[in-house]
Amino acid sequence: MNNVIFIMGVSGCGKSTVGQLLSKRLKVTFFDGDDFHPQSNVDKMSNGVPLNDEDRYGWLVTLNKLAKETLESNSCVIVCSALKQSYRDILSTDIQNQTKWIHLAGSFDQILDRINKRENHYMQSDLLQSQFDILEEPLNALEIKIDLKPEDIVEIIAKKMEMKSEFGLFGLGVMGKSLSRNLAQKGFNISIFNREVAGVEESVAANFKNDHEELQTAKAFSDLEAFANSLQTPRRIMLMVNAGKTTDSVIADLVPFLTDGDILIDGGNSNYLDTKERHDLLKNKNIHFIGVGVSGGEEGALKGPSIMPGGNKEIYNLVQPYLEKIAAKDANGLPCCTYIGEEGSGHFVKMVHNGVEYVEMQLLAEVYSIFHRMGTAPDKIADILASWQPTANSYLLEITIAILRKKEGDDWLVNKIVDKAGNKGTGNWATIATAQLGVPSSMIATALFARFNSFYKEDRIQASINFTTENQELVVDHQKVLEAYQFARIVNHYQGFKLIADAGKAYKWNLNLSEIARIWTNGCIIRSDFMVELIGVLKEEDAILKHKTIIDQVKLLKPSINTVVANCVLNELAAPCLSDAVNFFNGYTTANSPANIIQAQRDYFGAHTYQRTDDESGTFHHTNW
Amino acid sequence: MNNVIFIMGVSGCGKSTVGQLLSKRLKVTFFDGDDFHPQSNVDKMSNGVPLNDEDRYGWLVTLNKLAKETLESNSCVIVCSALKQSYRDILSTDIQNQTKWIHLAGSFDQILDRINKRENHYMQSDLLQSQFDILEEPLNALEIKIDLKPEDIVEIIAKKMEMKSEFGLFGLGVMGKSLSRNLAQKGFNISIFNREVAGVEESVAANFKNDHEELQTAKAFSDLEAFANSLQTPRRIMLMVNAGKTTDSVIADLVPFLTDGDILIDGGNSNYLDTKERHDLLKNKNIHFIGVGVSGGEEGALKGPSIMPGGNKEIYNLVQPYLEKIAAKDANGLPCCTYIGEEGSGHFVKMVHNGVEYVEMQLLAEVYSIFHRMGTAPDKIADILASWQPTANSYLLEITIAILRKKEGDDWLVNKIVDKAGNKGTGNWATIATAQLGVPSSMIATALFARFNSFYKEDRIQASINFTTENQELVVDHQKVLEAYQFARIVNHYQGFKLIADAGKAYKWNLNLSEIARIWTNGCIIRSDFMVELIGVLKEEDAILKHKTIIDQVKLLKPSINTVVANCVLNELAAPCLSDAVNFFNGYTTANSPANIIQAQRDYFGAHTYQRTDDESGTFHHTNW
Repeated sequence: MNNVIFIMGVSGCGKSTVGQLLSKRLKVTFFDGDDFHPQSNVDKMSNGVPLNDEDRYGWLVTLNKLAKETLESNSCVIVCSALKQSYRDILSTDIQNQTKWIHLAGSFDQILDRINKRENHYMQSDLLQSQFDILEEPLNALEIKIDLKPEDIVEIIAKKMEMKSEFGLFGLGVMGKSLSRNLAQKGFNISIFNREVAGVEESVAANFKNDHEELQTAKAFSDLEAFANSLQTPRRIMLMVNAGKTTDSVIADLVPFLTDGDILIDGGNSNYLDTKERHDLLKNKNIHFIGVGVSGGEEGALKGPSIMPGGNKEIYNLVQPYLEKIAAKDANGLPCCTYIGEEGSGHFVKMVHNGVEYVEMQLLAEVYSIFHRMGTAPDKIADILASWQPTANSYLLEITIAILRKKEGDDWLVNKIVDKAGNKGTGNWATIATAQLGVPSSMIATALFARFNSFYKEDRIQASINFTTENQELVVDHQKVLEAYQFARIVNHYQGFKLIADAGKAYKWNLNLSEIARIWTNGCIIRSDFMVELIGVLKEEDAILKHKTIIDQVKLLKPSINTVVANCVLNELAAPCLSDAVNFFNGYTTANSPANIIQAQRDYFGAHTYQRTDDESGTFHHTNW
Repeated sequence: MNNVIFIMGVSGCGKSTVGQLLSKRLKVTFFDGDDFHPQSNVDKMSNGVPLNDEDRYGWLVTLNKLAKETLESNSCVIVCSALKQSYRDILSTDIQNQTKWIHLAGSFDQILDRINKRENHYMQSDLLQSQFDILEEPLNALEIKIDLKPEDIVEIIAKKMEMKSEFGLFGLGVMGKSLSRNLAQKGFNISIFNREVAGVEESVAANFKNDHEELQTAKAFSDLEAFANSLQTPRRIMLMVNAGKTTDSVIADLVPFLTDGDILIDGGNSNYLDTKERHDLLKNKNIHFIGVGVSGGEEGALKGPSIMPGGNKEIYNLVQPYLEKIAAKDANGLPCCTYIGEEGSGHFVKMVHNGVEYVEMQLLAEVYSIFHRMGTAPDKIADILASWQPTANSYLLEITIAILRKKEGDDWLVNKIVDKAGNKGTGNWATIATAQLGVPSSMIATALFARFNSFYKEDRIQASINFTTENQELVVDHQKVLEAYQFARIVNHYQGFKLIADAGKAYKWNLNLSEIARIWTNGCIIRSDFMVELIGVLKEEDAILKHKTIIDQVKLLKPSINTVVANCVLNELAAPCLSDAVNFFNGYTTANSPANIIQAQRDYFGAHTYQRTDDESGTFHHTNW
């Protein structure tokens, strides 16, 4: 990340000399603030009239603008007295995060002596006292005494600047490694850490650094204190460790080495409720906490993931440049990273992303099983799926095609893979969240239960024998399968965004669903052409099934999913997610559901009461059945 | 509950006189312990030889046996010196809970004086000193000085005995009221409590007592301290309040009035995880906690519910007589109440009961909607369901028939009931438990989501307009619907018991599934002929789909559910639970599922690795796709 180094201090302290030398030493641009005074200020100073704050305001804004413009392409050194905090606030507006302060400090006599020795300087020495009068010592500056030689001062500053990393990454698993390389490739000075476990994890950070060219300037650690001390303050440390107890214990280990105002960024798949708790816990210790959902897998983390940060907005601003820089870019070149909302919201949205992902994967598995039942070989199934790409392309479709084409010897690799699907928790949490929030996002639960069911392999083998039936021959039209698949995906996305929208209301997050769709158009696992379409849809409707375009699509697709699901059922082929999509949808489009029977039963046995169609007041009635 | 009152004290204290008078006053049987001495003891005492402990042992056991036998039908008064704690321990073995001690106390001189005035007593007065020497003052007795007249002593004892209730019931909602009446009808002396909220809940307990004959001897309170003081110690207080925060605040309010060893029985629908926490919290305060699932609704609670208690077994024994007496009785006359397991297990099992109930209700609603779509009127649907009773009877089927027959004027009442199904939490928790424990009890989740979906009435009305299609005419054979319904019920019960079995393993509860089925055969909402059948099935197989009888049934029923579900799908009628049953089952009976595709995808994008069919070691592999 580019920085602006402001060299400050009273007139005559040696700012210009030191600044010029430093810019050469660091190979960055140099600006003398005095060169940017308007003529009116120059005149005043020449006549020995002290500048007032009004005189200075426009000048400071000019310097801030100069710094901002330069930072877009380069770091720079700017010298400027910047005696009051209010001046420094103007100078660093919007770039607090990239601003470093160096204060050259000396006594009145020291400096008066220097000024008197100078020639051609337009400031009269009798203004010096007024400068000392208004000087407010900065708290966040590196203070250097001016009795040192300028060359030595520059060396001290350069060392200080070089020694500290701007960003720390803790935990070098699959995702942590990729993110580290991504950060380094973007030019950030980073420190990386991995624990040392004899015989299990040895010199992980050091070896990893050595293996990758871009990490040459990164600092690798296995000692926690050294890692923490290697970082500029406020520290920015991204945790890439296992969710749950590991995250808690890592935080507990780190805290003793942190100082007030440091920022921890949890990039793991943490439960959003845990994130809220950790945020509150760390707040008491004056440590900031940002919960960040990161999607994209190993490759996405390296080339640009989709990033979903939640937490305090002002604190987020301090890490925003890093996250946006490493994120994937959407079709318009904007980062696939956007501030989601208060603490917990980033991980909540990531959790739903994964829930939608579970369903998309299960739907592809069901599509595969339909063609497989029809006797189609994997590479032929790949061909069919490839023919769907113009209509239904997605990252998951792409990789499924690649997977189905992968051969090992004479056989396809998929035929060698055991059919027990694992899960790491986010699908479970998404299901739990639907149950807790009262949202019928049934497809996520169905996809989760399909994975659970797959896990009971021995039971399945035994049951396939106990319940053996004649395998009926399934025949369905390819185009109909595509349309069924597309229908189910629409319902899946409806349910996912509905869950996010309802959670946003329940937790009073101020969510922008269209922005969430936008950052899911690249970098993440569920990126797809349909997601691109949803950016616009969600600008107009939170519930996508209420949007005109979607309604028209669904009407066209519905007959196909009816046919496909009915055929699967009649031929005893499990298609839980396709079936659930159609059943959910049939319930959703039923004006009068049979839930009146359930309400009658509840009132019958438990006196739970019910509402009446002929009583618009909504009063609850009880019948003595 | 019957009690035995032991009147104890040294020889000559007046036990027999007081005991005889007291038995008349309380209208219970009287026994003089001395009448049960063997001849050898009588001889010894006549010869002035003190009895030793060996002499006494058989006699004390005889008296304990006498007390136990009497208690089965009646209370009684037994006089017996019972000078040592070890003697009293023998006397009260297995009936600690029903034993009251009265100690008649006087000075040596007082008693010697009395003995000397007596005639025809076989005990020599010189034995008195030995009695005083061995007397260990009892801690848990009512001590009364013998200088009062026997009539006055009896009055004091009778008052004390009458004043304290043996069981307290806290909270007079629908369930609390029914349970209070049930307890009183079984002859228990109870105290009942309801809070006082001006304008909302006023004199609830007092009014309720006045309204019911059987509560004449019950004591009604709205003052917490008076309620607590009205109970015998250790107190047995059953809480019938709303689950969640209300339960916590009621416990917090009660604790200051409790003493060590008191027992709180939570009969509400509490979350099993909360029950575990409350148990541990109260343990620190020396208060016992039993979490009890109670099913049966308003009527069941009154006439006999099914009761599922969880907690420490020894503490459970202290409340067992009450719970078993008020419980429903099974076909063999045994109480529908059985000790489930350690804390939390009772509420867990009740939660799954409710989950299974959600599904049974939803299946009946779907059956209704199939016949409704075919244009069948409610009373005709009732006739069809009534014709199913010989094959598929259950409490829920019975009440659904009654509901469908209920008319209001010219129309059926069900047509007036708004189709928004409520829920009170247990279905949600059961769904959450499946997600947490990794058990694919998908039907509970599906039934829950169907209720959620019903709640979005406005969305459904709008969607029915947006997606209007020509309503196709559904035609299915009645017998096929019955068979589909029976198939789905089998899968539902498989999933429910599977969830209990897996939770039992995870939490190390030592569960008896057959006993759980047995206590669900009466009193509870899901009682049914099928549940009776499951008692035997579950004795042989935890997983009912592995049992021969069930396998045979399922094979016969399967073709029908295929037809029914396919028809519903083709005709756009929502049947989520029927569909889920068939899809789950098709997955369960698939030896080779398409989960290999999911594992390949996970390894492709996240390097999550997979197992191979040609590597029996179970090693995890990663492919560089």
